[in-house]
Amino acid sequence: MDFVITLDRDSSVPLYSQVAEEIRQAILQGRLKQEQKLPSSRTLAESLGISRITVTQSYEQLTSEGYLETRKGSGSYVCSQLPDEWLSIQLKERSPQNNSQFLSLLSDYGRSLIKADNSEALEPVAEISFRYGNPATEQFPVKIWRKLLSRHCYYDRAVFDYTYDPAGYLPLRKAIADYLARSRGVRCEVEQVIIINGSQQGLDLMTRLFVQPGDWVAIEEPGYISVRQCFLGQRAKIQPISVDKKGLKVDVLNQCDRQFKLLYVTPSHQFPTGVVLSLPRRLALLEWAQKTGTLILEDDYDSEFRYDESPIPALQSLDRNDSVVYIGSLSKILFPSLRIGYLIAPPALVPIICQARWLCDRFTSLLEQYALTDFITEGYFERHIRRIRRFYNHRRQVLIKAINEYLGERATIVGENAGIHLIVQLHTNLSEEDIIKSAHKVKIGIISLKPYYLQATSIKEFIFGYSSLTEPQIREGIRRLASIQEL
Amino acid sequence: MDFVITLDRDSSVPLYSQVAEEIRQAILQGRLKQEQKLPSSRTLAESLGISRITVTQSYEQLTSEGYLETRKGSGSYVCSQLPDEWLSIQLKERSPQNNSQFLSLLSDYGRSLIKADNSEALEPVAEISFRYGNPATEQFPVKIWRKLLSRHCYYDRAVFDYTYDPAGYLPLRKAIADYLARSRGVRCEVEQVIIINGSQQGLDLMTRLFVQPGDWVAIEEPGYISVRQCFLGQRAKIQPISVDKKGLKVDVLNQCDRQFKLLYVTPSHQFPTGVVLSLPRRLALLEWAQKTGTLILEDDYDSEFRYDESPIPALQSLDRNDSVVYIGSLSKILFPSLRIGYLIAPPALVPIICQARWLCDRFTSLLEQYALTDFITEGYFERHIRRIRRFYNHRRQVLIKAINEYLGERATIVGENAGIHLIVQLHTNLSEEDIIKSAHKVKIGIISLKPYYLQATSIKEFIFGYSSLTEPQIREGIRRLASIQEL
Repeated sequence: MDFVITLDRDSSVPLYSQVAEEIRQAILQGRLKQEQKLPSSRTLAESLGISRITVTQSYEQLTSEGYLETRKGSGSYVCSQLPDEWLSIQLKERSPQNNSQFLSLLSDYGRSLIKADNSEALEPVAEISFRYGNPATEQFPVKIWRKLLSRHCYYDRAVFDYTYDPAGYLPLRKAIADYLARSRGVRCEVEQVIIINGSQQGLDLMTRLFVQPGDWVAIEEPGYISVRQCFLGQRAKIQPISVDKKGLKVDVLNQCDRQFKLLYVTPSHQFPTGVVLSLPRRLALLEWAQKTGTLILEDDYDSEFRYDESPIPALQSLDRNDSVVYIGSLSKILFPSLRIGYLIAPPALVPIICQARWLCDRFTSLLEQYALTDFITEGYFERHIRRIRRFYNHRRQVLIKAINEYLGERATIVGENAGIHLIVQLHTNLSEEDIIKSAHKVKIGIISLKPYYLQATSIKEFIFGYSSLTEPQIREGIRRLASIQEL
Repeated sequence: MDFVITLDRDSSVPLYSQVAEEIRQAILQGRLKQEQKLPSSRTLAESLGISRITVTQSYEQLTSEGYLETRKGSGSYVCSQLPDEWLSIQLKERSPQNNSQFLSLLSDYGRSLIKADNSEALEPVAEISFRYGNPATEQFPVKIWRKLLSRHCYYDRAVFDYTYDPAGYLPLRKAIADYLARSRGVRCEVEQVIIINGSQQGLDLMTRLFVQPGDWVAIEEPGYISVRQCFLGQRAKIQPISVDKKGLKVDVLNQCDRQFKLLYVTPSHQFPTGVVLSLPRRLALLEWAQKTGTLILEDDYDSEFRYDESPIPALQSLDRNDSVVYIGSLSKILFPSLRIGYLIAPPALVPIICQARWLCDRFTSLLEQYALTDFITEGYFERHIRRIRRFYNHRRQVLIKAINEYLGERATIVGENAGIHLIVQLHTNLSEEDIIKSAHKVKIGIISLKPYYLQATSIKEFIFGYSSLTEPQIREGIRRLASIQEL
């Protein structure tokens, strides 16, 4: 034997594994040649001062891995079939990371992601950041959640095993159907409810199922960046449709003779402007969808938070032609890291969506579905909504008051009656970039509305999220903004 | 007023909502005409015996929804902009479910799913079902899991809020990297570990990122149906590569002059045959991948369960050219409803996979990622693996003994040294369909290997899962099978 085996008797790695690894490396590095005979297990055991069984175990391991072969009555040999070139390649360093190697392999989808604009995921890093969409998670009744999770964390095959229904846990689907009927006027059978990993999965599934490269789709302008990215990933052609104070301009759609596959809309609280789609437009939109055979994706992402009156019924509640797929999120109501949302689909679409979901990632974690079911059916859910609605309303009022007090006529507030963010138009000669820079200097993070527009725009509008800021933070943030010179 | 408002004072629905709903329905059904003046709030309040504030609230609600409009000094009117045709459409029944309406809208991906073969999801329903892949979930230490979940279910923004790293919770990624280095020889930096919702999501992501319609991909024959479905969904051309006793026939690949984008392989325990890819073939496969620029998807789905020797190192551990994406599942080790798996990707691929994941469904539920981290780092994980390996080994031996005892020479067992299923070849004149039918008559569910072949085959092979059957069930199941006439 022209190689040395060193053993570490204090290691947690079993001795036979250590022996096997040393021999394996000797083979791969060419120190043990092909067809070379190994010492008998007895000999090696004695030379290493270990038991013969240990050596036998390591030889068996290497044989099963194909490094060694056993010849009857003659002992163990290094396998003859090891390709020479490979043995030497093993010695080379790992090849340097080469991005271009992979770029050439990527699908069109993969390539689209390289160019994808991720600005939405980038939060401003600042002492006080008016980022939006992050709920006040500290308000979540975590003790109750713990209780409900623990309640189902006892052995029960149904909770722990596979489910073959990717649509989700039936009682949860029923609880959601009932809740949406009460709160949003949504009309559906429980079979139409499909549990998903948050609303993004709904957007992705619908895009994949319906958008063929080159198809036209329509989105709101300004609108939600992540849906635009989904559409671009599928190489759709995107038609932005302007939004005014009554929401999406449906007359523009009617004047457009393009055939759209999908239209994405946020009727309850347009994202990001915060306007509400008026009833006449809702009806006109549904009529357009029926006439043109377009499927509407209604994203009802934060409709629970209305401060002036009770929530406006969903577009889905007016649909009589199965034109609407309703997408709901629980990230803003419960907590974002939960990853449970839902789709309400026309009955004819349910099987194909479930099929796609099954192939994507099977189904949503069951234990959390069980806990959520109880959370809704035992009344915690709506109690929590009522509570945080008051809570956010308070923060909202503090923000509005601070804007009026500190910024006065330099600012106009839009879309303040709903959701957990509002829009501020700033009337100033400063450029939008200068405003952000100046804000950053006083350690305030604000997000421009610009990336939400697909077309060029000269607006000076900003999104102000207030859900995760304390009242002193909100006041101080606006005070500092107002102190920016020339603003 | 030519309509009657009926109120239910015992209802949990607030009175103002009831009033609003009645008026809404009256408008939608045409009982209240466009531009018709509504009674003053005072008049309506008196006629209904409710407070004027309640009526005002319902009018405000309807105004904000666009059903009513307020004319200064003159009161509330039904909105003039309601499209006539819509009002009458409201009265019609929901249109009948029409599948073909949607079929014409589907993308190629959507269409591919209509034809998708779901046989894998269909378990045989029987008194004793030899289905495979369902672990003995009752063996999972649920009490410890409950403890670990509860431990993190205290308020902590990091656990409950969004994470902007779709790759997952860093300590979990580290725990998995360490575990895989110990147990599978996997060599990676923690940054290469990406947490996913089970291995299926990994297959789906990789397919989308790399497969362009018309691209060639290679799979094992017989092989895993769900990966085939992923590939077909992306309209790949699929080349089945035969498997023999040493696993995938790499020489066939070398003789093939097609350019493949991806090759899917299960080296540790070929699915479904259970054979192990030999070392010479592993090396040849890596060489082929490097030479042809093909990316290998290594699915290491149940490598933890080897009964003859310790697990064979992963193919990834031999890769020096970043040719391998390693996919791991925890469904068989922990429990399938958890929905956590992982990808180990070459460093250059990590950003694009994360980008795709973010757009698909953001990230994996954090609370369960935290619990899993502790489960691994505190030693529960490997202790559990050791325990259930012994447990399954016992069931496996009972199955093998029963097959030998009852079926004797009528059966040959394949791939029995690993995993939680084995393959039985039956030597009989009965057709494969007749065997399944006869088994069903004695209330035994068995699964044919036929659907796992892409090409026509005349084999009479069956998969026998034993992980979720008790020993008496295993013995009784085989006894009944053996009693089938002419078998």
